[in-house]
Amino acid sequence: MTGQPGAWRSAITDADAESIRIRGYDVTALMAGASFADVLFLLHRGELPSPAERRLLDAMLISFADHGPGSPSAMAARTAATGNRRGLEAAVAAGLLAIGDAHGGAGYACMELIAEGVAQVHGGRCPPTEAAERIVERFVAARERLPGLGHRTHPVDPRADALFALARELGVAGEGVTFIEALRDASAARIKPLPINVDGASAAVLFDLGFPPPAAKLLFIVGRTAGLTAHVHEELTRERPMRVKVAVEYDGPAPRQLPGS
Amino acid sequence: MTGQPGAWRSAITDADAESIRIRGYDVTALMAGASFADVLFLLHRGELPSPAERRLLDAMLISFADHGPGSPSAMAARTAATGNRRGLEAAVAAGLLAIGDAHGGAGYACMELIAEGVAQVHGGRCPPTEAAERIVERFVAARERLPGLGHRTHPVDPRADALFALARELGVAGEGVTFIEALRDASAARIKPLPINVDGASAAVLFDLGFPPPAAKLLFIVGRTAGLTAHVHEELTRERPMRVKVAVEYDGPAPRQLPGS
Amino acid sequence: MTGQPGAWRSAITDADAESIRIRGYDVTALMAGASFADVLFLLHRGELPSPAERRLLDAMLISFADHGPGSPSAMAARTAATGNRRGLEAAVAAGLLAIGDAHGGAGYACMELIAEGVAQVHGGRCPPTEAAERIVERFVAARERLPGLGHRTHPVDPRADALFALARELGVAGEGVTFIEALRDASAARIKPLPINVDGASAAVLFDLGFPPPAAKLLFIVGRTAGLTAHVHEELTRERPMRVKVAVEYDGPAPRQLPGS
Amino acid sequence: MTGQPGAWRSAITDADAESIRIRGYDVTALMAGASFADVLFLLHRGELPSPAERRLLDAMLISFADHGPGSPSAMAARTAATGNRRGLEAAVAAGLLAIGDAHGGAGYACMELIAEGVAQVHGGRCPPTEAAERIVERFVAARERLPGLGHRTHPVDPRADALFALARELGVAGEGVTFIEALRDASAARIKPLPINVDGASAAVLFDLGFPPPAAKLLFIVGRTAGLTAHVHEELTRERPMRVKVAVEYDGPAPRQLPGS
Repeated sequence: MTGQPGAWRSAITDADAESIRIRGYDVTALMAGASFADVLFLLHRGELPSPAERRLLDAMLISFADHGPGSPSAMAARTAATGNRRGLEAAVAAGLLAIGDAHGGAGYACMELIAEGVAQVHGGRCPPTEAAERIVERFVAARERLPGLGHRTHPVDPRADALFALARELGVAGEGVTFIEALRDASAARIKPLPINVDGASAAVLFDLGFPPPAAKLLFIVGRTAGLTAHVHEELTRERPMRVKVAVEYDGPAPRQLPGS
Repeated sequence: MTGQPGAWRSAITDADAESIRIRGYDVTALMAGASFADVLFLLHRGELPSPAERRLLDAMLISFADHGPGSPSAMAARTAATGNRRGLEAAVAAGLLAIGDAHGGAGYACMELIAEGVAQVHGGRCPPTEAAERIVERFVAARERLPGLGHRTHPVDPRADALFALARELGVAGEGVTFIEALRDASAARIKPLPINVDGASAAVLFDLGFPPPAAKLLFIVGRTAGLTAHVHEELTRERPMRVKVAVEYDGPAPRQLPGS
Repeated sequence: MTGQPGAWRSAITDADAESIRIRGYDVTALMAGASFADVLFLLHRGELPSPAERRLLDAMLISFADHGPGSPSAMAARTAATGNRRGLEAAVAAGLLAIGDAHGGAGYACMELIAEGVAQVHGGRCPPTEAAERIVERFVAARERLPGLGHRTHPVDPRADALFALARELGVAGEGVTFIEALRDASAARIKPLPINVDGASAAVLFDLGFPPPAAKLLFIVGRTAGLTAHVHEELTRERPMRVKVAVEYDGPAPRQLPGS
Repeated sequence: MTGQPGAWRSAITDADAESIRIRGYDVTALMAGASFADVLFLLHRGELPSPAERRLLDAMLISFADHGPGSPSAMAARTAATGNRRGLEAAVAAGLLAIGDAHGGAGYACMELIAEGVAQVHGGRCPPTEAAERIVERFVAARERLPGLGHRTHPVDPRADALFALARELGVAGEGVTFIEALRDASAARIKPLPINVDGASAAVLFDLGFPPPAAKLLFIVGRTAGLTAHVHEELTRERPMRVKVAVEYDGPAPRQLPGS
């Protein structure tokens, strides 16, 4: 229908009494002949992926899926579950809410840098190395850390290498991968050597697959729900309510009286 | 306006270009002449509170406000903030999501028991002690814990006594307070002595103030946001990103190879 | 490591400086040789799926993926995004929080009924039809609606038929499918004819695949994040901030003066 | 206790078996002798407020409390509740998640501008008018809207005037109020006349009360939970499950076949 006042426009899914069509494909046809990664790609991009695109998306989702109970998202989900044992959706949502600038959000920021750098290269103004150096100088001046490089627990992030290997094998690595490698090298020369992490690698590959920057965070979220749901289930089946505790060291004001009492 | 198709009905707040009226009172008049507890009462009950009602609501909100960083809601909020340092609303929401059956939710369940017990008393079928005994037997049979009694860290919950003292001083303690004391005594005789905790005490007082059971949880949420916002701010100003960690003891399958590899 | 005081036990993922292993498999091996559905199954069940299990899990995730912007979860996510345009994780989480008893939660409740019914059959006490009739009588007596039957917009839910067809083709349909069909028939005879919906169909198939009841909701959540992330992205790229509005029909107290003013 | 490895430091609340102390004051003393606004101030600032500070904080919380069901936060909360009728905490949290840059977040951004402007004034470099003009030029150059000015539904925001009047009456209006008025005037001269809205007014007053910028958002969150909890309760008591709907206008690809089918 068209032109109904107040209607919400959407080009994603059309549902009527008889059928549900995602980007034009009947959901039952997709159920019979597609994988979840196919449909996720379709939802975000409007078309089904090629086999190479599907494999890379699967690999990225797997790389995002879990990092154990000590990552902030899993820890927040399990902490919520310890107090709210009937709200499965609440515990998973609490986990998602720990995903931000410092955890799972570097891919988005990194993809914006890649888009900026590649745009400069395309504008004919400079080779990737120069564009990368300029960005590194800006981060040095602002005393900020470059997103996509280094990892607090992995000296080398095994997921990044695996993703690049797959992208090269499938012939998908392009300007995004080239640019983040230039960024890594420029950063190593100017600041200190740090390998590309999973956020940086997936940002580069998503760029080469044609995704826009917010997709880096949105697809991380989709992948991580796999792990978060497993952690919530493990918490509820293995642990007792309110078991999550933390040792507290209070260092505020000593006991005192209310004025006038 | 009336009868617009698709309009959402609401009896809470009316806003037009010139003014905003909460339950009929202009918000500017409330800002000049009321307290937050007054307006919270007005929003939930439709009328402004009496001085006694306001004092009890303030006392309850204060009793809910905080219990340190080791409570699941504060811990979930701070854990979310450690990964998501720009999403203040996300961190506070993560804290709320830890409020459920095991943490902050006992008041709701307890208020339903009080309502049930008082209804039996009113139905002329029994004195409070008998109604309480019946409920205790049911919980014993179901092997469930009675909500509103006992606390994992406080042998005696100081907030409960303070609230009952205030309710008595203000002449508000009624059938709700009588019934939860009957429940405590019946439970002590049949199971083991456990004092009334803050959830049970506030459930009884809210009942005597005329609130419906869900209010016990909703008002707990309002009160606890005071503490959660303070914890989120302390986390962001005192601690570095991703500082929250937990020691993990993995006890799953040993390293293994993918089939066919 | 073992026995560290305060450590969180987990059998899901083991991460050290060099590697990340999910249920014992190196994440890089999974990235190279598995699909997202494989890893989701692995996270929840501890083992990789058979090809039939993988296909059914993919089909279910696809059936959950999206139902357009008018479903409460998509609407909540887009509404949050209209006010909070930088918090992608917040908008997706708001969508998850609309998933509950009335939306996306029927699968969990239905799976508990299936487990109860099949347990009665196994206990040798009755054939499926009788167990189903008993459950239907209980719901009639409680004046509650049976979960898993009927859909507010689809007279016949096309996803349910597609899922059953696939389960039969793959030889996976078992006692769960048999029981929900008995439940549908008993309900049709006693109340009114209603077809099995996607929640009921996936509950039956998940039961036959050996998943526990909470998985029905947790896997729905994973599948639905595919659609929610697409809706959040569409909202942010197609619509302006604060565009979501609703016509409001205020029917509360008329304008009035504060007492004493 | 001090120095326990892994302990979480906090200067907010100290709880032991016998007592709970907020910033050193026993919670039972606060329950007997303080209001919720007092304790909220204490939690955030470490000290109890003066009577003028308390009155202004109450007035601000009231100005934040509700704006009817059509504001994104109330709409998101009610939409979540329509699908998730047992998760009161989930519905309130969904409402909070709509609070961001475009809704309820302008106070934070505005307070940062005020802090910047006042710092320039203090640095002796310029009068407020000049500092304000410089900021306005920067926003013009960036084609961004100044936070704290104008409102989509109120030509004049009545809450702003009420707050300024109270701040002046209580002798609290200081450099923050002066600076936002300079900003309003510089913006009127350079762009177009727009009055200060509630976000801008509360940012100025919070600055003059000594709060840091994030407090503008955190206190908005606390105030708005009053309204959100009332909306969730009204939704659950007045409306049926899944009643929230939206007219959808699908404008994506026409029905099509899967390749190869």
